Amino acid sequence: MEERIDTRSDLMIFGGLGDLARRKLFPALYHLERTGLLAADSRVLVLARRAHSVDDVREQLASDIRRRVPDSDWDDGVLSRLLARVDYLCLDINRLDDYQPLVRWRGDCENALIVYMATPPSLYGVIARQLRDAGCCTRKTRVVVEKPIGHDLETSRTINQQLGEVFNEDQLFRIDHYLGKETVQNLIALRFANNLFASQWNQNHISHVEITVAESVGIEGRWGYFDQAGQVRDMIQNHLLQLLCLIAMDPPADLSADSIRDEKVKVLKALRPITPDLIESHLVRGQYTAGSSQGKVVPGYLEEEGADRNSTTETFVALKVEIENWRWAGVPFYIRTGKRLPEKLSQIIIHFKPAPHYIFDPDQRHLASNKLVIRLQPDEGMTLQILTKDQGLDKGMRLRRGPLELTFSEAFQTDRIPEAYERLLWEVMKGNQYLFVRRDEVEYAWRWVDGVVANWQAHDDLPKRYAAGTWGPVAAIALITRDGRSWYEDA
Amino acid sequence: MEERIDTRSDLMIFGGLGDLARRKLFPALYHLERTGLLAADSRVLVLARRAHSVDDVREQLASDIRRRVPDSDWDDGVLSRLLARVDYLCLDINRLDDYQPLVRWRGDCENALIVYMATPPSLYGVIARQLRDAGCCTRKTRVVVEKPIGHDLETSRTINQQLGEVFNEDQLFRIDHYLGKETVQNLIALRFANNLFASQWNQNHISHVEITVAESVGIEGRWGYFDQAGQVRDMIQNHLLQLLCLIAMDPPADLSADSIRDEKVKVLKALRPITPDLIESHLVRGQYTAGSSQGKVVPGYLEEEGADRNSTTETFVALKVEIENWRWAGVPFYIRTGKRLPEKLSQIIIHFKPAPHYIFDPDQRHLASNKLVIRLQPDEGMTLQILTKDQGLDKGMRLRRGPLELTFSEAFQTDRIPEAYERLLWEVMKGNQYLFVRRDEVEYAWRWVDGVVANWQAHDDLPKRYAAGTWGPVAAIALITRDGRSWYEDA
Repeated sequence: MEERIDTRSDLMIFGGLGDLARRKLFPALYHLERTGLLAADSRVLVLARRAHSVDDVREQLASDIRRRVPDSDWDDGVLSRLLARVDYLCLDINRLDDYQPLVRWRGDCENALIVYMATPPSLYGVIARQLRDAGCCTRKTRVVVEKPIGHDLETSRTINQQLGEVFNEDQLFRIDHYLGKETVQNLIALRFANNLFASQWNQNHISHVEITVAESVGIEGRWGYFDQAGQVRDMIQNHLLQLLCLIAMDPPADLSADSIRDEKVKVLKALRPITPDLIESHLVRGQYTAGSSQGKVVPGYLEEEGADRNSTTETFVALKVEIENWRWAGVPFYIRTGKRLPEKLSQIIIHFKPAPHYIFDPDQRHLASNKLVIRLQPDEGMTLQILTKDQGLDKGMRLRRGPLELTFSEAFQTDRIPEAYERLLWEVMKGNQYLFVRRDEVEYAWRWVDGVVANWQAHDDLPKRYAAGTWGPVAAIALITRDGRSWYEDA
Repeated sequence: MEERIDTRSDLMIFGGLGDLARRKLFPALYHLERTGLLAADSRVLVLARRAHSVDDVREQLASDIRRRVPDSDWDDGVLSRLLARVDYLCLDINRLDDYQPLVRWRGDCENALIVYMATPPSLYGVIARQLRDAGCCTRKTRVVVEKPIGHDLETSRTINQQLGEVFNEDQLFRIDHYLGKETVQNLIALRFANNLFASQWNQNHISHVEITVAESVGIEGRWGYFDQAGQVRDMIQNHLLQLLCLIAMDPPADLSADSIRDEKVKVLKALRPITPDLIESHLVRGQYTAGSSQGKVVPGYLEEEGADRNSTTETFVALKVEIENWRWAGVPFYIRTGKRLPEKLSQIIIHFKPAPHYIFDPDQRHLASNKLVIRLQPDEGMTLQILTKDQGLDKGMRLRRGPLELTFSEAFQTDRIPEAYERLLWEVMKGNQYLFVRRDEVEYAWRWVDGVVANWQAHDDLPKRYAAGTWGPVAAIALITRDGRSWYEDA
């Protein structure tokens, strides 16, 4: 039974008419309104630079939300109720005077104040200071910030420092939206409520782990931004390391935010550095060239609009990650992520070790290990690959892969699985930080990533080409086949 | 790859127009013919007491087969091919002269000779001797016999002894048709090809096991026969102990018939005797009274046609079985079987122990263990009960049972799963004994069962009443709830 928690909130959204707010936050608020989770008194304040009337803002949001909610979930009444909560103020982030109206808007309202900084991270510090100086925040204010928290360890420290001057760590909600996905949270239930898995979750029983986060899209309109970062900083440092932590962490003593995050940090601290001698064997960077994607001919990374033709930024990366602790010694985590891959797909595959002795047909020995496939998208769910006896009299004792299947949308007979931002906003309203990234997590992740980057730079590693619509450079295949393994294919 | 084995066979069926032959063996032969598994030269000789012409016999078999093969599998050409193999001889089992025509029928044919004794077990001995005396069998003859091999240890020894005077153990194929079911064989693949299960298959990880074989039918027309045996002798001694052996046996070093049967015998030898002091706590016998079954009002066991109203024979039994070895110390096997239960259902449930530490909502602690449900019928397949996070934002970290499902007919996209007798006949043709019961298995099973019977008789244990259409006497529930557990229900 969940305790009744006061979730009445005033939500202030800086960058309230920006891309994130319009594409993700307001549709999420719509769904929270629809499921009755927004407390009667909760209010929303949109803050943006350009002058608009409240009516203009509401109209704009209405059309944004309408476009992103499927017909089956649509209800005009829900929209009206949500918009009635929405207020708007024009604000120049740098002008302290502009913050006074925020104080008046708050009045003596006792709702929790949630400040959502849907702005570039470079503005987090100034917003925090101005809010403090305007007398707008209390010990109970909660602040939500988005990635990237910096570009490396040093810049992330600066941002964390600026936020930390105004807010305590328990007020800070750093979003990695992967943590809001149902399947990602399900990893906790899967690992710690099922002793069948929990008791085997270590180097005695698992041979290796794969994590793939594949995108089919290219860079599309944000070339300059992406080129400064690259796939390692843009995807590995946050999403993939977060997934890796949830898979690899020791069992927390309880489900409190800090117990979970303490365990995640221990994993990050135990990551084996990709030292110069490992760059060749443990890292493959790739950059896509022209090819075809989803049936269309598409340009290469260096031919995208606004591209610098000499860029050596990676759009793909595969890494062999080792975790130097008791649980995972000798169990590599092969992780890969890239743009313009054949499909949009996120999955984790746990490869269990085969039985110590094999008594079936020798030519089927390669089949003989169990795999747990956890699909984050599409079709959130999981499959346990087991071996059964093949049917048919003429088959003797032949083996056959028999998938044990669980697709969440079917299993729970639910019309929709909540989107990550719904979950995350709801957890902020409840004041529960367990799905948010703590300062030391961000910084330990950067520390490891900085080492990777520094060593490939020193090594003069150039990205290898791969045609758009393929699974990355050939070297990424070699990275795993060298160990006598291969990337999982469903077929 | 299965080796090519010579499967050319001459099949002699004693009792060739009896119930078993007509209901099971010929439909099975039809399917073997249909799938092309009957070698071109294989022949079938029907032996029966009453004089018929070959044509009468073929006509009779044709109509028997037609009635039992679904339209979708029907093919007149298959039937014709099968009937063309069929010959018929009238034979009085006790007259040695009647066996001479069998010798002539064989001629110098080099096919393996399979003698199928589809007769009462009391005739096995005489048939074996007559065959020998008529010069009808060689070292390569294979003999198939059906349960019951006796009524207790002593009578089973007699039968085995009579067969053993003529045939070596490697010529004897004792049928327990449960061993021909695909799912039962699948236990071998499931247990030994899947280290996920193999490594946990012991008292460290399994808390208890349930085996249920439920019939919805009553005694129907064989009251006198059944009343002599009762459910313990009729079902426990063979089917349920065989299932228990397959679940409990140590891994065999290879898949040879004797490696597997050696391991099964070790289990039978390790069964804890149900001594007088255990009769109350480990055994519940039941006898059905009038009630309703499948929507119809049905009479009680003592009111069936031909019933002796004073019978104390059990139609239901529940046992708590303990296996005194290293693998299973402290892990009870709760087994039950009965007539006139609510449904026809055979299933095995492996209850895994919960995780050592529990971090989810205290009120959900009862959910927290994994179960593997192996369904023999209906819908052969298996379900792994795992726990996942419940969907829905308002659920927090609530758990929910999420079944991982594998239904064989779906998974293998097969229109039909072969019936037990097809598999068993095919294995006899191949000369593979791994699905047949060895002499020592029969005798160790009887030894244990004899002890159970003797002790309940000494204890004057009377069967407890249960209404037809219920899950047996209340005491059968108490048998397991006393240990803080309950019989598995799917709901």
